[in-house]
Amino acid sequence: MSPPFLLDPRLEADTAAVGDLALCRVLLMNDARFPWIILVPRRAGLTEWFDMPAEEARLAHEETLMAARALKAMTGARKMNIAALGNMVAQLHIHVVARTEDDAAWPGPVWGAGTRVLYDLATLTKRREAVARALSVSP
Amino acid sequence: MSPPFLLDPRLEADTAAVGDLALCRVLLMNDARFPWIILVPRRAGLTEWFDMPAEEARLAHEETLMAARALKAMTGARKMNIAALGNMVAQLHIHVVARTEDDAAWPGPVWGAGTRVLYDLATLTKRREAVARALSVSP
Repeated sequence: MSPPFLLDPRLEADTAAVGDLALCRVLLMNDARFPWIILVPRRAGLTEWFDMPAEEARLAHEETLMAARALKAMTGARKMNIAALGNMVAQLHIHVVARTEDDAAWPGPVWGAGTRVLYDLATLTKRREAVARALSVSP
Repeated sequence: MSPPFLLDPRLEADTAAVGDLALCRVLLMNDARFPWIILVPRRAGLTEWFDMPAEEARLAHEETLMAARALKAMTGARKMNIAALGNMVAQLHIHVVARTEDDAAWPGPVWGAGTRVLYDLATLTKRREAVARALSVSP
């Protein structure tokens, strides 16, 4: 029996849960400066993308592109940033961030840029529901 | 007839060519601070990963994981960073960077961190050959 999947506490604290795709948990980063989705494959103890079985690695890839396409359609933003870094939070998680020329970090990366601005609850709920609809997941 | 693939001039200036995989050109970033590979799908006019036909998008994914696995084996570094950003250079390119706790940007991202340190020619040649061997590509 494989150990249960547990979301890293820091990811949990920084995000709002949107729902589950076939493989990944979908999170909305609680930072009103950037439309920012995080995908976390629901597998215990996973750190590197290449440590997944090939079929699951591919599914994570497909879900990532689905999220990027959805975020592009939702925002019309200029560029989607896709990244699996994991220097601070070891649990494998994939960032999908919509970027525009007038955002708070352009053209630099969002990680480590300035200070997070929390959503107000109404906007957080609205955006979370919009992402859930776009990805056909339910909380 | 599809237009010819041309490497973005900035990518060309900042890297050394390693060779070609089935889909991607493999580049070594000329920054001695980080073991850093860049993959560029050899398709003209490509900006977003999700704009490729699904089969090619998947091949880019597989070649990215191959590069990440090879860089991990070569360096033994703690964490591989994988990212397709493209805020500065629009041409789709995928970063694969080996990260360690004592590197020049840890735990932050490498993009925009400090100033690039060029390899000396002997080290550049050696590392380039090592990457080529690890990925079974030839210049």
